[in-house]
Amino acid sequence: MQVRATQEQTAPTSAPVRTAVVGVSGYAGGELVRLLLAHPRLSVPPLLFARVSEDNIAGSVPLSRLHPRLAGSHQDLEVHSLENSQQQEREIDFVFLALPHEASREVVPEWLNKGVRVIDLSGAWRLKQESNRAVYGLTDADPDAADLLQREAVFGCPELHREEIASARLVANPGCYSSSIILALAPLLRLEMIDRSHEIICDAKSGVSGAGKALSRNTHFMNVADNFLAYSVFGHRHTGELFEQLGLTSEQIQFTPHLLPIPRGILSTIYARLSHPQTAQEIESALRNFYASSPMIRVRSSPNLPTIQDVANTSYCDIGFNLAPDGRRLVLVSCIDNLLKGASGQAVQNLNVMCGWPEDEGLR
Amino acid sequence: MQVRATQEQTAPTSAPVRTAVVGVSGYAGGELVRLLLAHPRLSVPPLLFARVSEDNIAGSVPLSRLHPRLAGSHQDLEVHSLENSQQQEREIDFVFLALPHEASREVVPEWLNKGVRVIDLSGAWRLKQESNRAVYGLTDADPDAADLLQREAVFGCPELHREEIASARLVANPGCYSSSIILALAPLLRLEMIDRSHEIICDAKSGVSGAGKALSRNTHFMNVADNFLAYSVFGHRHTGELFEQLGLTSEQIQFTPHLLPIPRGILSTIYARLSHPQTAQEIESALRNFYASSPMIRVRSSPNLPTIQDVANTSYCDIGFNLAPDGRRLVLVSCIDNLLKGASGQAVQNLNVMCGWPEDEGLR
Amino acid sequence: MQVRATQEQTAPTSAPVRTAVVGVSGYAGGELVRLLLAHPRLSVPPLLFARVSEDNIAGSVPLSRLHPRLAGSHQDLEVHSLENSQQQEREIDFVFLALPHEASREVVPEWLNKGVRVIDLSGAWRLKQESNRAVYGLTDADPDAADLLQREAVFGCPELHREEIASARLVANPGCYSSSIILALAPLLRLEMIDRSHEIICDAKSGVSGAGKALSRNTHFMNVADNFLAYSVFGHRHTGELFEQLGLTSEQIQFTPHLLPIPRGILSTIYARLSHPQTAQEIESALRNFYASSPMIRVRSSPNLPTIQDVANTSYCDIGFNLAPDGRRLVLVSCIDNLLKGASGQAVQNLNVMCGWPEDEGLR
Amino acid sequence: MQVRATQEQTAPTSAPVRTAVVGVSGYAGGELVRLLLAHPRLSVPPLLFARVSEDNIAGSVPLSRLHPRLAGSHQDLEVHSLENSQQQEREIDFVFLALPHEASREVVPEWLNKGVRVIDLSGAWRLKQESNRAVYGLTDADPDAADLLQREAVFGCPELHREEIASARLVANPGCYSSSIILALAPLLRLEMIDRSHEIICDAKSGVSGAGKALSRNTHFMNVADNFLAYSVFGHRHTGELFEQLGLTSEQIQFTPHLLPIPRGILSTIYARLSHPQTAQEIESALRNFYASSPMIRVRSSPNLPTIQDVANTSYCDIGFNLAPDGRRLVLVSCIDNLLKGASGQAVQNLNVMCGWPEDEGLR
Repeated sequence: MQVRATQEQTAPTSAPVRTAVVGVSGYAGGELVRLLLAHPRLSVPPLLFARVSEDNIAGSVPLSRLHPRLAGSHQDLEVHSLENSQQQEREIDFVFLALPHEASREVVPEWLNKGVRVIDLSGAWRLKQESNRAVYGLTDADPDAADLLQREAVFGCPELHREEIASARLVANPGCYSSSIILALAPLLRLEMIDRSHEIICDAKSGVSGAGKALSRNTHFMNVADNFLAYSVFGHRHTGELFEQLGLTSEQIQFTPHLLPIPRGILSTIYARLSHPQTAQEIESALRNFYASSPMIRVRSSPNLPTIQDVANTSYCDIGFNLAPDGRRLVLVSCIDNLLKGASGQAVQNLNVMCGWPEDEGLR
Repeated sequence: MQVRATQEQTAPTSAPVRTAVVGVSGYAGGELVRLLLAHPRLSVPPLLFARVSEDNIAGSVPLSRLHPRLAGSHQDLEVHSLENSQQQEREIDFVFLALPHEASREVVPEWLNKGVRVIDLSGAWRLKQESNRAVYGLTDADPDAADLLQREAVFGCPELHREEIASARLVANPGCYSSSIILALAPLLRLEMIDRSHEIICDAKSGVSGAGKALSRNTHFMNVADNFLAYSVFGHRHTGELFEQLGLTSEQIQFTPHLLPIPRGILSTIYARLSHPQTAQEIESALRNFYASSPMIRVRSSPNLPTIQDVANTSYCDIGFNLAPDGRRLVLVSCIDNLLKGASGQAVQNLNVMCGWPEDEGLR
Repeated sequence: MQVRATQEQTAPTSAPVRTAVVGVSGYAGGELVRLLLAHPRLSVPPLLFARVSEDNIAGSVPLSRLHPRLAGSHQDLEVHSLENSQQQEREIDFVFLALPHEASREVVPEWLNKGVRVIDLSGAWRLKQESNRAVYGLTDADPDAADLLQREAVFGCPELHREEIASARLVANPGCYSSSIILALAPLLRLEMIDRSHEIICDAKSGVSGAGKALSRNTHFMNVADNFLAYSVFGHRHTGELFEQLGLTSEQIQFTPHLLPIPRGILSTIYARLSHPQTAQEIESALRNFYASSPMIRVRSSPNLPTIQDVANTSYCDIGFNLAPDGRRLVLVSCIDNLLKGASGQAVQNLNVMCGWPEDEGLR
Repeated sequence: MQVRATQEQTAPTSAPVRTAVVGVSGYAGGELVRLLLAHPRLSVPPLLFARVSEDNIAGSVPLSRLHPRLAGSHQDLEVHSLENSQQQEREIDFVFLALPHEASREVVPEWLNKGVRVIDLSGAWRLKQESNRAVYGLTDADPDAADLLQREAVFGCPELHREEIASARLVANPGCYSSSIILALAPLLRLEMIDRSHEIICDAKSGVSGAGKALSRNTHFMNVADNFLAYSVFGHRHTGELFEQLGLTSEQIQFTPHLLPIPRGILSTIYARLSHPQTAQEIESALRNFYASSPMIRVRSSPNLPTIQDVANTSYCDIGFNLAPDGRRLVLVSCIDNLLKGASGQAVQNLNVMCGWPEDEGLR
């Protein structure tokens, strides 16, 4: 199904890997640039592009205008207009797309045609089932070609799809909420430890950066500070990722997002029933074994639970749990930084896998 | 079982009602004083007491020392040492106790013996079942007398126990988490609309004032700000109130508290399965009818959900809900200010009921 | 210069005072409605108006749609479209205008012509000097009439202009920053205790509600949370109020506003040099004497300084100070809630003065 | 005066540099460990020590117990009891001390005697004048020896003392507040552009991590959130650093710290009068030239001013300014992350200088 293993995918090469980031003006884009600039295997800085409409970028603009934190003390990278992104002389090996999903749907085929491997941070290519994808209202110029690409696209969760990612041309980076939930549930579901006849409840809470940089009443400081709220009950777009990645139906899992008055981080509290009574030690072993080769997952020993501060500004996913005295009712707590393990950190993790580098290179 | 209906309980009297607050130095105590000072039916300011150990109060201290916000511009109320609380010449009709539960357990009999009606804000007298009370580790000097009083004590949720409160000598003001959950679930459980064979999941989130004024790592700004965490999973003290007030077992309801990085407010997200498919209109009507005479409850029309800001600094409980397309899976969202409807506001509401005043007097 | 002393201004009357609020959808408007609804002398609820453009108000809309916190449990006030504000049958005695300054400039003459007394919360009528007013870029249909009104308008700081406010037709409620600064400096300047040859530095910090409800990058949660910044250095619109009310030139006083990551409250740190060495006791006495009849001012004893929490959600201005060992260098700290003493609370205080009621009625 | 130039100080060596951090449990200690672990020139992880009393460390404890964020996914560094710090077999080249100043005063001589170069983060060794040091109340076992060391100690501001730091045995890392103020003022003072006859006002605001990890009322979440306050007016310990580093007297500069409701970051607003009228361009050039070889300073072009977010989680100091139309009155705004440029980042910068590495190695 996928174009197979070029040399680059099977072994690290000595030629410098050349990257580009398209859509650097948002929060995920900014974090991505920060990570790539500090990545020890990337000797050449990434080419940077942003959309004209967003930031009045005519020709180019210094990166520090968009992200003052990323300013060097004496010089600055340039961010180019998106329109120029495909006319660049320099060859690009990998492009990261941090664009709205419609835009991603449009430009991905062009990049692939040029032989550039794509790591897409939007929701455009994550879902195999058309029914799950419907919520995005995507329209394609060439539906058949898009359909083929959709089937080729690999869901970019390295902990679950490491091998396919290694050789993928198009990696669809997971959603932030879904990352936190899938990583906590996948091991126990695959091991058949969870009773699927009991609905799994996922009560998830996210910081505001998940809502993006656009101005809206929901992100006005006065409506967020000292506040907390639930939204998109029974209707959040990430739900389809849970269905597909966990193999569950809408009867079997339910997910409610909430908005936390903090800039970044997700904590998901997940309620499940075990098939058979277990000890905390058995649960912990199951999780640790499953993630033995996954450097970005940190499993806690019960009753110790992770908090958002433990993962903020890191690319780790911290997973803990508590078990009721009956050994059946399980509460999982999963924490990520939505901009890192939930977006840009996971994208770099995918780059590492695609390049055959250590999976946590530049992410420790 | 209870001392019955004095004149005061059946009709407003012209003699001024005299109140006292014991334990004014904490957050709930401060809010209570604020409410009582502004209460239109209380022409005499409350007598104020605080514990010596807490604030180095020898004889007395100005209220503004403990709560600068409550300073008058030119004069100040005095807060007396708790030791002096029972030697006051002035007669007291009602005493509010905002003390640790052990202290409450000790002093309540004395107040009642003096003919003073008690509204207790601690957890000392809320639970009828000894098994539920065990978590508090209470020890009584006279266990039989304490047992009698425990049976006499009325759970101070006016929406559920209005009549008993009206004539009660001892009202046990509910816990904050339990207030938010009980008020959302009681109507639908009493109407048998909820399927008790499906476990009800209560995912509750509270601001920091719920943890009290004591210094601890958990309330250090650096550990709360930009953070969010779950705690006391399968073990919070308020769980017993859910069992007793809702008539549910530990198999039927589960409650997980979380700490929000905000000063005040609770939002509980409650997941339940309906016995039969319902429409949103039916749910809304059930809630509205149940609370038709309850001025402190505001029911929302689906899909509109309350947020913490909607109730912060008010004594209202706002209840909203969303229903899955199957008409069976219900998500209730219940919001209160933990210091008001979850503590001091509800205490004043109980005073109003005990005095025969409009239930929302001084609380609108 | 002003229409003089109707009966209402010299003594409380028995006929109910009828009020209206025009522009209820903003933060100050919401707080104003809350205060008026709870005001013990106002037996008739205020008529409420908002601008169509802001909230898509065609005919009318329930108040709870604009301010969910203000919802009653069973019924709701209606907010009418601004267009209907002057066709109301009910007679109005006082109108509060919480409109943009251009709009205020336009509608004030109409209200006055109808015999309605106006308390204006915008910056439109605060400044006597055209040079100070220039920053607002006001244009008037009838410049001569506007000029006359401008001269008639009374700066609505009751602590400084109580008598003129009592009989005023048009009260220009002060700016929030300027309120905090003027109240701290006016006593010592009037007493000639401050050396005017040394520039006074006012470093002021405000919560976000001061920036209003409009969406902007500056009020996006992500740009405010965990942040702090200075803005409008040497150019804030409130500076003119300092010049006029304190009798100082741009050489004598300088004011820099900053944005705090909190919803409400202003703290101004003010640096001044005393004309002669003084003791802390002398400074404190000077302040206390000056404000002996001002119930909304609370003076602190040095070295105790007020904080924003002490005044948040109150209509008080708390003033404290520290003095250097040399007895010459003075640091004043002045705190207000920008929405209350800095806007709506002060507006109600002005209403109280205009009606001959106790100045702190409904504000304690 | 100082032990001169070992080989290590003049040129990078190939033998791995061995470091230790004493006092890792606090905020600065945690950040320091994070930086050292990621430092590209440090191939050997630092030895870690913490005080028994603080964290009940008997023998040793995993780093993740003290700082969960710093946990590796599969293994952990060990933190040893401070008592063991000098019995370690491994040789140490540099020790970072993040201890209370009394403790630093005691242990520094021992480390120096063993030939270990010291970077001290406390206030113990920063001040040359005994009068400025008095505020720390330091007592020394051997006052003469301490006095000699005090004279030898180099104030660890690389932008001002680069050469002395390069060869120093004992570097006294600057205070956080003083770092932000000194870096903004030093260039213009040294260039005699500032009029010293006009008092310089420094109004500084810091996040809560500056107050340390100890529990206190001042750092309880409820007293910080939604609040803002001034403290230590005319009496903060960092004032002496301003006097000594800037060559000013207490008549010439004044500094007021404030507490911001955010975890980290300092913004100082500094008011000065220029000796002669200048243009913004002249000021900017003066600053840029002064810092032409200082990679951790970023100068802004007026009127653009830095904010705390621009420097949070970085080791940069961002400096901006605005000039009044008269060209005389200057407002400087200086921002740092108090834990990085204000503590641990600057300590690593000093290490870089002491090792002859690029000054921003591991800090970009």
